[in-house]
Order: sequence, then C-alpha cells, then structure tokens
Amino acid sequence: MSFDRLIDGIIKTQNPTVAGLDPKLDFIPQYIKDEAYSKYGKGLDGAAAALFSFNRELIDALCDIVPAVKPQAAYYEMYGWQGVRALCQTIEYAKQKGMFVITDGKRNDIGTTMEAYAKAHLGSTDIEGEQFEAFGADALTVNGYLGTDGIKPLLNICAEHDKGIFVLVKTSNPSSGELQDRELAGGETIYLTMGNMCEKWGDELLGKYGYSAVGSVVGATYPEQLGELRAALTHTFFLVPGYGAQGGGAKDVAPAFDKNGLGAIINSSRGIMCAYKREGCDEKDFAAAARREAVRMRDEIVSYIGEIKA
Amino acid sequence: MSFDRLIDGIIKTQNPTVAGLDPKLDFIPQYIKDEAYSKYGKGLDGAAAALFSFNRELIDALCDIVPAVKPQAAYYEMYGWQGVRALCQTIEYAKQKGMFVITDGKRNDIGTTMEAYAKAHLGSTDIEGEQFEAFGADALTVNGYLGTDGIKPLLNICAEHDKGIFVLVKTSNPSSGELQDRELAGGETIYLTMGNMCEKWGDELLGKYGYSAVGSVVGATYPEQLGELRAALTHTFFLVPGYGAQGGGAKDVAPAFDKNGLGAIINSSRGIMCAYKREGCDEKDFAAAARREAVRMRDEIVSYIGEIKA
Repeated sequence: MSFDRLIDGIIKTQNPTVAGLDPKLDFIPQYIKDEAYSKYGKGLDGAAAALFSFNRELIDALCDIVPAVKPQAAYYEMYGWQGVRALCQTIEYAKQKGMFVITDGKRNDIGTTMEAYAKAHLGSTDIEGEQFEAFGADALTVNGYLGTDGIKPLLNICAEHDKGIFVLVKTSNPSSGELQDRELAGGETIYLTMGNMCEKWGDELLGKYGYSAVGSVVGATYPEQLGELRAALTHTFFLVPGYGAQGGGAKDVAPAFDKNGLGAIINSSRGIMCAYKREGCDEKDFAAAARREAVRMRDEIVSYIGEIKA
Repeated sequence: MSFDRLIDGIIKTQNPTVAGLDPKLDFIPQYIKDEAYSKYGKGLDGAAAALFSFNRELIDALCDIVPAVKPQAAYYEMYGWQGVRALCQTIEYAKQKGMFVITDGKRNDIGTTMEAYAKAHLGSTDIEGEQFEAFGADALTVNGYLGTDGIKPLLNICAEHDKGIFVLVKTSNPSSGELQDRELAGGETIYLTMGNMCEKWGDELLGKYGYSAVGSVVGATYPEQLGELRAALTHTFFLVPGYGAQGGGAKDVAPAFDKNGLGAIINSSRGIMCAYKREGCDEKDFAAAARREAVRMRDEIVSYIGEIKA
C-alpha cells in the first residue's frame, strides 16, 4: 500500500531509474520485425509480436540493474488489441523478472468508471466469483483533473493490492505551463494545488520509507518546480520523465531527490531503447547497448545524489 | 474535419443523444453470459465475448433511431486485451450500422505520445508502408491538462481523417469542482479557461454547422455551467454525460443546446443498457427495453428543445 516495493528495488540496485518501454516500430531492429512478420504477417499481429520480442530482450538485459519498467500504453494501443496483448505480455514478463511495472496510461474518469480502470490496471476483475488480473501492473499514472472522486477508487485498490499511482502534477512537455503554471486566486499555481491534493490523497497510505502510495509526475525539464515540489510534498514519491531525449540532464533531476537519495525515480525511454542507434553498433547488439546506456545513466545520476539509503 | 457527420445523424434521426456502451458483466443478461462462457470459458475470453454479444444486440436495436454510441474504454480494459478486442469489434460493428462512434478514453499525454494515441483511436498506424486502423473511432474524449502540445497531434489527425475530439471541461462527477471550479488570478474559472482553449484549438477546423472538430465534455449535473459555457463557446460542440443514472434530467440538459436544437449530444449509458432491469421485463427483451428507453429519452429532450434544424 505504498511504493515500498519500488524503493526496495531502488536501494538494492542503487539505481533510481526506470526504463520506459515505448516500442514504436521505428525503434525496433529490423531483424526482430522481419522475424515477427514472417511468423505472424506484416500487420497488427506481426507488429505486436515484434513489440513483445523487443521488450523481452530489453527486460532480460536490464532486469538485474534497473528496478522498474514503464510501458507507455499509447505505443501498444497504436497496434490495436494485438498491441494491447503485447502490453499484457510485457507486464507479465517484467514482473516475472522481478521488475516493478508502472503502466503509463494517464487514465482518468468519474468514480464508477475509475473503479473499472483501477481493477483493470492494478487490481482484478471478478468473473462469476473468480478473480482475474486483466493487466496487473504495480503502478499506474493517472490524471487528477476530475478531483477526489476520480482518485478514490484507486486508493482502495492500492491499499488492497499493495499498488501505487502517480498523478500528473507538472508534466515535462513545452506547453505544460499553459494550464499547470496558472495562478489561482489565492496565489498558488495549479501544479502545486494538484501536488497538495496528492499529499492529501496519500495520507493514509504511508509506507516504511515515509512515502505514500500516491506519487506525482513531475518533469525533468522543469528543475526549479521539481525542487519546489520536493520541498513542499514530503510524502509524495516522484516519477520524473523528460531525462535524455526530452532535454533534461542529471543535474536537472537532482532536485527531485531527498537527502537520502530517495523520493524519485527518473525515466528514460528512447535514450535506453535507441541506444544502439546512437552508438551506431550492430542492431543485434541493441539490448547490450541499452544496458550500457542504463549503466551510464545510473552512474551519472548517482554521482549527483550519492549513496541511496533507507 | 468537424462534427458534421455526427450533426447530420442528429438531424436525420431528430435525436441529440448517444448511447453509452459500458458493458459491465453485471449489466449483461445471464443467458448471454452463459452462452459466451459455454463457448469461450468462464474467464476473460468468455467475458469479452459476452460484452460484444450484448453490444451487438443493443446496436441492432438502436441504430436507426440513435445517431451515435459511446463505448467507455475502462469497461473493456477491465477484461484485459480480450476486452479491448471486444471494443474493436464493437466500434467496427457500430460503424457498419451507420452509427458515429465516440471512444470515451479521456486520453492525454505529451506531444509525441499523444500522436500515438491519435493514430490508435482516430487515425491509422503505418506498418512497413501500409496503413492499419487500430481502433478507428470517429471521435475520442481527451484530457487537456497538458496544454496545447498534448492536443495538437489530434488536430492534425482530425483534419486528415475527418474525426473529432471532446476535451474534458466541466465533468459530471460530484468533486469535479475541486479543481475545475477554482478561480484563476484573473477571475476566470479553470473550466472556462479550458473551454476557451477548446474554442481556440478548434479555430481552423470549423464545419458547415458552425461547430469545430474540438468539442467539450460538460456534465448534465451542472446545468448552470452548461448554460454559461454554451453562451461563451459558440463554435464548440458539447458531449454531455450525467443524464439519467447520474441525476441530470431533460430540463438540466436544455441549456446545452443552441436555438436550432444543435450544439450538444446527451449521453445515457446505464439508463439505456439496464432499461430491462428497471422495467422488470424478461431479460431476453433487454434490447427492446433499451430501444423503448432511447425513444423515451429522445422524446423528453426534444420536448424541451423542439425541432432540430440546420
């Protein structure tokens, strides 16, 4: 009922990073695609098979040094229900390999419907008295625009199933400020208001490290706000996208961490998935290149925050 | 590149309503479930088959009098990738029957990822030079918390594929006001700010009826704000949930319409799907009961707004 399992993994690997699994076909080595197309055809079935093969090799190459993966739902939905099946397979495989799985779905809806999303992605679905895990991730990103009753059903499932959520607070994209940076009548920004709501929502779901099951998404591309939010939201764990391809560096993400090097996990997607392209190595070496980049990223970030301790 | 196709359908049927397809197992007659379980087992496959059978009969019963359906993604995801396959089948079947399909997914993300969602739900996916429709809906609900660059990729796809989006502005749930009703420093509420962004986003996607391809979601449970927004957002078509089960009545939704009876489409999900339970009729009569309720709802709303004309 908190992020304890994730933080355990971060401490064990001394690595506060998560590998984003956003497997666009463009990112996948041709030999993997050709193999998948020859078995399943050059369509959605073949593409989906390629996604899962790619992810499986990445997970094998990363699972002992990176504590978590973050599949982005959009890149699976783009390949239809077959792609969504590859998402299920990916989640299952990563969990088997001991990784913490954060489904990046940014789901949101009114209470009764949010309960369905909560069951789908974090809990289980009842079919004639038997429980089935539909996706079974460990955490889900969500959007809090609808307020408390769109979040509440998730909290129940987090408590019951030992899962967590990350609520969008200050996103990494260039126009995130259009709404999120606007000041309310009282002088507080919308992103800080949303952050404070996360603190409140997590109140009864605190874990042994002092962080609750309700985290926030705060972009690496806004280091100042990252520091402001870290200081304000003492029980809220941060998921930090925007490192690498989007422009954030290790120095930019340092303010996300507390004095023990805890409090945040930094995501890299393209940086890790496409390391083989940047290196210019043989595409068959893509998984090893991903591992080299994951090690480089870990070392760079840890050089700013020091040893990670409980 | 607008909601012209939807509005054509509304005028033709003289019915400004959409049937929500949120097929929880609890809502589905037992004989349909038993048939599906006997063929596909009492698990996610069987449940998903039941969802599609249920939807198919509802679509058959409604397609000549109701212009649109709105499947809610959460209720399909709850049944895993098999449920998502049932969503694909439902969309395809409703389109075959001439209905306009609004996928209620409330998707949102940064630009590059939103492009993937746009392709997934409204556009097409390129696989080695060939285009595949992953979901192929006519419109998608989205959440604008991330600002313009999270919306822009959708606008391109709407223009290219003649599709539309509905952005959450003022949602129907009890705590929607927690964030959405807050006043910004200038005195404007967040929901109105979001509404004004919709007006701007739709600027270059105007259709023949004066409404753009960028609509707003505004709940029937807040009739005052519905009227305020109708007056302020002259080019923005409204999708209005909250009628029926959530408490909104025909009088509450009347302010959503313009003087021609255009400008909005009212959703009913449980009201229509579960009409057979409320009526207490034989469960085998569920589709006819849904049609009776759809007719009743249409007549009730039209009695407030009069003839719908171009």
